[in-house]
Amino acid sequence: MKACGIIVEYNPFHNGHAYHVKESKEKSKADCMIAVMSGHFLQRGEPAIIDKWHRTKAALQSGVDLVIELPYIFAVQHSDYFSKGAVLSLNALQVDSICFGSENGAITPFLEAYQNLNERLEDYESSLREGLDQGLSYPDAARLANETIGISVEAFDFAAPNNILGYSYVKQIKSYASAIEPLTIKRIESNYHDTHVSGRMASATSIRKELLANREVTEHASLALPQSTVDELNTYYNESKVWHDWESYFNLLHYKIMTTPTEELKHIHGMDEGLEYRLKQTIRSSTSFFDFMHRLKTKRYTWTRLQRLCTHLLTGLTKQQASLHLESEYIPYVRLLGMNQTGQAYLNRRKKDIETPIIAQPQQLTSTLLDAEERATAAYFSPLPPVQRIKHLKKEYGPPVRIH
Amino acid sequence: MKACGIIVEYNPFHNGHAYHVKESKEKSKADCMIAVMSGHFLQRGEPAIIDKWHRTKAALQSGVDLVIELPYIFAVQHSDYFSKGAVLSLNALQVDSICFGSENGAITPFLEAYQNLNERLEDYESSLREGLDQGLSYPDAARLANETIGISVEAFDFAAPNNILGYSYVKQIKSYASAIEPLTIKRIESNYHDTHVSGRMASATSIRKELLANREVTEHASLALPQSTVDELNTYYNESKVWHDWESYFNLLHYKIMTTPTEELKHIHGMDEGLEYRLKQTIRSSTSFFDFMHRLKTKRYTWTRLQRLCTHLLTGLTKQQASLHLESEYIPYVRLLGMNQTGQAYLNRRKKDIETPIIAQPQQLTSTLLDAEERATAAYFSPLPPVQRIKHLKKEYGPPVRIH
Repeated sequence: MKACGIIVEYNPFHNGHAYHVKESKEKSKADCMIAVMSGHFLQRGEPAIIDKWHRTKAALQSGVDLVIELPYIFAVQHSDYFSKGAVLSLNALQVDSICFGSENGAITPFLEAYQNLNERLEDYESSLREGLDQGLSYPDAARLANETIGISVEAFDFAAPNNILGYSYVKQIKSYASAIEPLTIKRIESNYHDTHVSGRMASATSIRKELLANREVTEHASLALPQSTVDELNTYYNESKVWHDWESYFNLLHYKIMTTPTEELKHIHGMDEGLEYRLKQTIRSSTSFFDFMHRLKTKRYTWTRLQRLCTHLLTGLTKQQASLHLESEYIPYVRLLGMNQTGQAYLNRRKKDIETPIIAQPQQLTSTLLDAEERATAAYFSPLPPVQRIKHLKKEYGPPVRIH
Repeated sequence: MKACGIIVEYNPFHNGHAYHVKESKEKSKADCMIAVMSGHFLQRGEPAIIDKWHRTKAALQSGVDLVIELPYIFAVQHSDYFSKGAVLSLNALQVDSICFGSENGAITPFLEAYQNLNERLEDYESSLREGLDQGLSYPDAARLANETIGISVEAFDFAAPNNILGYSYVKQIKSYASAIEPLTIKRIESNYHDTHVSGRMASATSIRKELLANREVTEHASLALPQSTVDELNTYYNESKVWHDWESYFNLLHYKIMTTPTEELKHIHGMDEGLEYRLKQTIRSSTSFFDFMHRLKTKRYTWTRLQRLCTHLLTGLTKQQASLHLESEYIPYVRLLGMNQTGQAYLNRRKKDIETPIIAQPQQLTSTLLDAEERATAAYFSPLPPVQRIKHLKKEYGPPVRIH
């Protein structure tokens, strides 16, 4: 029984994702599609529009057989750590391949780029450090470092977010999971950063924008979504009275920054170079999360970096807690979010060979990774009215989603 | 120029308070009435219904000449620490007397009770410790200790909240401020714990209940309030869109408890005997602050003690920060909240003899006491909509209230 891993956020699951699952399954000739999915907060430092359980259900109804959780500590990180967590998780489940979307659908440029990096790792790393020291953002410094070792923007477009991630996946597979075959398919979605829904293929960003602006699944948005996603979006809204965006957390963030002493803010993961003073100063006069970010942003402190920092502030992730796991080469557990019968069959078949503990509920294991998950979930559901909040918090300790 | 000090919360300022000011002024023959007032959180661990600035203005319009702030760290404490902070503050301003309300208006029983205590301090303290060790609440242990040294409930009603406080004032005056003359007047307000407004004299508790239930100053409530208080209540509501009660902080408290690791909760002032586990366990399933407190409360953990703990949780006051000041015998500053011309004249006349720094704005001094104040203010205004919040937070760094 062959398995193919995919690395996803599904925020929310749309037609482009369905295409990715279908094409990846064909390309990999896998019997079982395993998605490692971010939980309640996403790579760019944003809350997911609906919770992980409803997103899992939508995925299982659209071709995914097994959904596991990318732990919070890895999920809200730049591409290298994000990929590391995802690849380690899929490797723990012994997938045969990992298939990701890319701009032109060929794996060779990724492998060549990695080969190149491997041969000139020292040059890459010293250039990266230099760029960061000069005040470049991480993406800019990484791009410059890549150019230094001969991977030019012309040969390999590092500006395309999917290429950055794809390259990162290949790098992590080669470093930590060499038994896995990296595969790629050509993306057919509209551009990642598109802000308007257009037709059946639209970016998750544009879909979220439309959903949040209208507080309902418009006909327009539903064009780009499988029916199961439409159902899950509606169900979650009815159950919880919210779809999540950063503005719903602004008062909590304000409270957190204002009532935490600077010397404690310093310990938050991502709080570098005295940013804590800048945060304290700026939040005082900010009228919204958007306003806050807008004032905070500079060339050096990118929007995404600052959003991640705000997420870690909200969930109280410290530097110490993060580095413990980010620098490790193994993952302490794999957590099941949901499965269908194929997913279950795969687990049954491989169970005896898998060394990493597979858990269905967080109370089955003690890990600082799970503590961080618990805090992230508590923070995520904070904007809900109390009765709905209690109900949703309980799910964190309940069984995974099962569909037949 | 003689000054009389009074120790107040004014939550809100009502006719009983106006009577207290007037009678105290007559009894003390003072030219200047100085009130040391709690800021945004009160002795029983509750947010004040309106902010300290509007409460100050109402007081200045009803006979008080100068209002100074009882620092947060002293304000939200049991009677001994509360009194200590208040007496030290008034002593710093060299008041000639302190006048408080009591059940029968005679000072002698208080002085005799203190005399007795002083002679049998060791017995008192060992009995107090024993009671606490046996699991009694502080008020119960203190009452028992008083009985041990011969101050019986019959001779001196310790069940009356005003007597507990009055006795505490006398004790602190005699211990730290022996130049001050303790005075008392008979209370004419209705009972402290009355829950219904009845006529011109009503308890602050019953007035708040009526205000919060109706979200307007009812005709009924206004009977018990000077017009200036009615005006300030309305002004604050128009400016901020809220009157404060614990329910407006429930989501913040929930967030704080759920996202703070147990080992950090342990450091909060008042978190004793593993209460942090009980809090974490209970908050999960509580639908409101009232529900939370109701589940949390036991014979040992009184409502008031738990409310104070919740306040310290909300403002992040640690054991270390608190004990530094609570155990000290001097107060690092006196902060002015407001004054009229008489108050200003008093300060001008005494200025050269006063050793404690008098500050009009917190930025004039560096003190951990002011840091705690700042956090308390930030937490207090958290339920306001962002634009209103910004405006109110600015006042913390603005000038004191002045009326002519």
